[in-house]
Amino acid sequence: MNNFTFYNPTKILFGKETISNLSSLVPSNKKVIIIYGGGSIKSNGVYEQVINNLKNHDVVEFAGIESNPTLQTCMKAVDVIKSNNVSFILAVGGGSVIDAVKFIAAAAVNNYDDPWQSIVIENNFNNAMEYGSVLTLPATGSEMNCSAVISNSELGEKMAFSNSSVYPKFSILDPSTTFSLPSSQVANGVVDAYVHVLEQYLTTDINTPVQDRWAEGLLLTLIDQGRYVIDNPNDYEGRANLMWAATSALNGYIGVGVDQDWSTHMIGHEITAAYGVDHARSLAIVLPGLLSIQRKQKEKKLLQYAKRVWGVTQGDKNVIIDEVITRTTLFFQSVGISSRFVDYDINPEEAAEKIGNIFIERGQLFGENRDISGELVKKILLNRQCLY
Amino acid sequence: MNNFTFYNPTKILFGKETISNLSSLVPSNKKVIIIYGGGSIKSNGVYEQVINNLKNHDVVEFAGIESNPTLQTCMKAVDVIKSNNVSFILAVGGGSVIDAVKFIAAAAVNNYDDPWQSIVIENNFNNAMEYGSVLTLPATGSEMNCSAVISNSELGEKMAFSNSSVYPKFSILDPSTTFSLPSSQVANGVVDAYVHVLEQYLTTDINTPVQDRWAEGLLLTLIDQGRYVIDNPNDYEGRANLMWAATSALNGYIGVGVDQDWSTHMIGHEITAAYGVDHARSLAIVLPGLLSIQRKQKEKKLLQYAKRVWGVTQGDKNVIIDEVITRTTLFFQSVGISSRFVDYDINPEEAAEKIGNIFIERGQLFGENRDISGELVKKILLNRQCLY
Repeated sequence: MNNFTFYNPTKILFGKETISNLSSLVPSNKKVIIIYGGGSIKSNGVYEQVINNLKNHDVVEFAGIESNPTLQTCMKAVDVIKSNNVSFILAVGGGSVIDAVKFIAAAAVNNYDDPWQSIVIENNFNNAMEYGSVLTLPATGSEMNCSAVISNSELGEKMAFSNSSVYPKFSILDPSTTFSLPSSQVANGVVDAYVHVLEQYLTTDINTPVQDRWAEGLLLTLIDQGRYVIDNPNDYEGRANLMWAATSALNGYIGVGVDQDWSTHMIGHEITAAYGVDHARSLAIVLPGLLSIQRKQKEKKLLQYAKRVWGVTQGDKNVIIDEVITRTTLFFQSVGISSRFVDYDINPEEAAEKIGNIFIERGQLFGENRDISGELVKKILLNRQCLY
Repeated sequence: MNNFTFYNPTKILFGKETISNLSSLVPSNKKVIIIYGGGSIKSNGVYEQVINNLKNHDVVEFAGIESNPTLQTCMKAVDVIKSNNVSFILAVGGGSVIDAVKFIAAAAVNNYDDPWQSIVIENNFNNAMEYGSVLTLPATGSEMNCSAVISNSELGEKMAFSNSSVYPKFSILDPSTTFSLPSSQVANGVVDAYVHVLEQYLTTDINTPVQDRWAEGLLLTLIDQGRYVIDNPNDYEGRANLMWAATSALNGYIGVGVDQDWSTHMIGHEITAAYGVDHARSLAIVLPGLLSIQRKQKEKKLLQYAKRVWGVTQGDKNVIIDEVITRTTLFFQSVGISSRFVDYDINPEEAAEKIGNIFIERGQLFGENRDISGELVKKILLNRQCLY
């Protein structure tokens, strides 16, 4: 096991009717801004619950955070915060809203000439405005971590930052708020969470049985419950199990002391930036080829994954690895997410060339062994041997 | 899944040479008291490492915390804190030392006429002195939770309390510090952690797949690594995996949203109080009879435990349950811990009568269904059908 530091001070309130705790969780002496996205919280009743529970608080609002939140939108929210003397933020929504609020919380209390440079690039801050969240979409884990992905629409860049001063003070997870999600968004969340686990699990085997078993437990749960929720959208238990699995996939716990990959995310971010493909779908496109090309480096873990998650043990190791990559791809398909470029109207050769060149230009090497180059990205995106 | 609140702000520093972080973790402007036990930290080099890393801090010491820490000893430490204007505590040791420090931290900043009544019985406090810990014995999980068990030698009582103001600010877990532990203490830690998991897992099945899988992952790890460490005491990886499994068994994570039992601990505490049996060994005595008697209430989880942890699936369900209780008992034996009263020179009939009567006198009902009475305790302690 590698040495590690673990710290996660977010308080989670999980379950039915937990939004009613808002009135006591949000400090009564602070002016509050409620930040949300495109308005789905108004049609599903969450907005009304939040407002009712903050009726004795002094509240302003900021709506319109996008799916891939931009610096430009975030800075508009910062202006509202400063001109209204706001001192507490409440994020209401999914990972995009909570990611945006992490940036906003940092920018609101630090006066930077260039917030993008200072917060995202240099990560040069150690304080932020306090905030809490009400989660409405299980997927990114942002509700219980200190990471965010922000896009800069002027530069055409999409980048992540992590900073321990932007953990939510609390997050409310009421699975009932997810009943009205369209199945395409549920599927995105399932695949996003599944790949979060794999990024921390399918790496070098360095003897970490607790972390391995916990990762496998989340994968098995996402497989069972992901399909179940899509077939039974109004079942509270399924929604609850899916929500808790997605949070647990990226709150730091399964990633302590292990080697981590994250190359599927790095390549996927560029596909989203170039073609507008949903985040989770970009991951589904990248993953099969990545696992196939990196099978040598990931061999022990791929065989363990095959055995413990999919029960695949028969045959030569390359046969097993092909089989388990196919099973993973078919699982994504079973919730409605394709791993084929053509299903997103993208020409594979053109995309491989374009995305690969981005990393070649940057001279960037990544993955758990820092052995994935732009040239290899092209091979990964053209490797289709495990797809059907 | 039940509704739950989860909050755990302890920072964990895990790995080789992590004690060197002490100088920056302990606030330099505070007077520090180092609290420890019987002096094993002086023979294994931990004391020297701690002192060297705090050489620029103003430090006093308090030694002599017992295995089952008493109110009386804790209050002596409080006197030293008050007379020296100490404002930060460093616990160095195992669960007993850290448990004691939780009580001491609460008593040091709250002026109670009767600290036992206010802290342990009424749990009537919401602040405590800041403290950190250096863990030297993986077992109780106290290094990453807010619970403690304290004994009152005058009243002859041993009681637990939990309060969110007594989470350690940080805990340093360097597996190297455990190389010198005698195998009997390693075995105690393995069985203690194993039973911590079972108390949160072998209850009513209320559809909690993440929590179940994580509990099973810890059990499988404790089985593999527990035996391995006893056979290979100088292997760092084994020590590391065992340490992280024991911490993860009782930091709150696997217990969210599930029904919890804790009757093995309640009965075990009384056996320890009456006969001086080590805590873990008292649990090993109670558990087989408890599982056998409560098999109806715990049936679904016992069968799941049999299948997923022990691979036992053949036969009638009572045969399976008997088999898995026996396997559990034999596992405890394999690390050197007997489940038979006679191996501790205790007469079973006499003990069953004595311990059962304690609960009858209190009129107490406990277990996840509040259906375990003093009369049932007698039956549990006399049920020996799964023992060999």
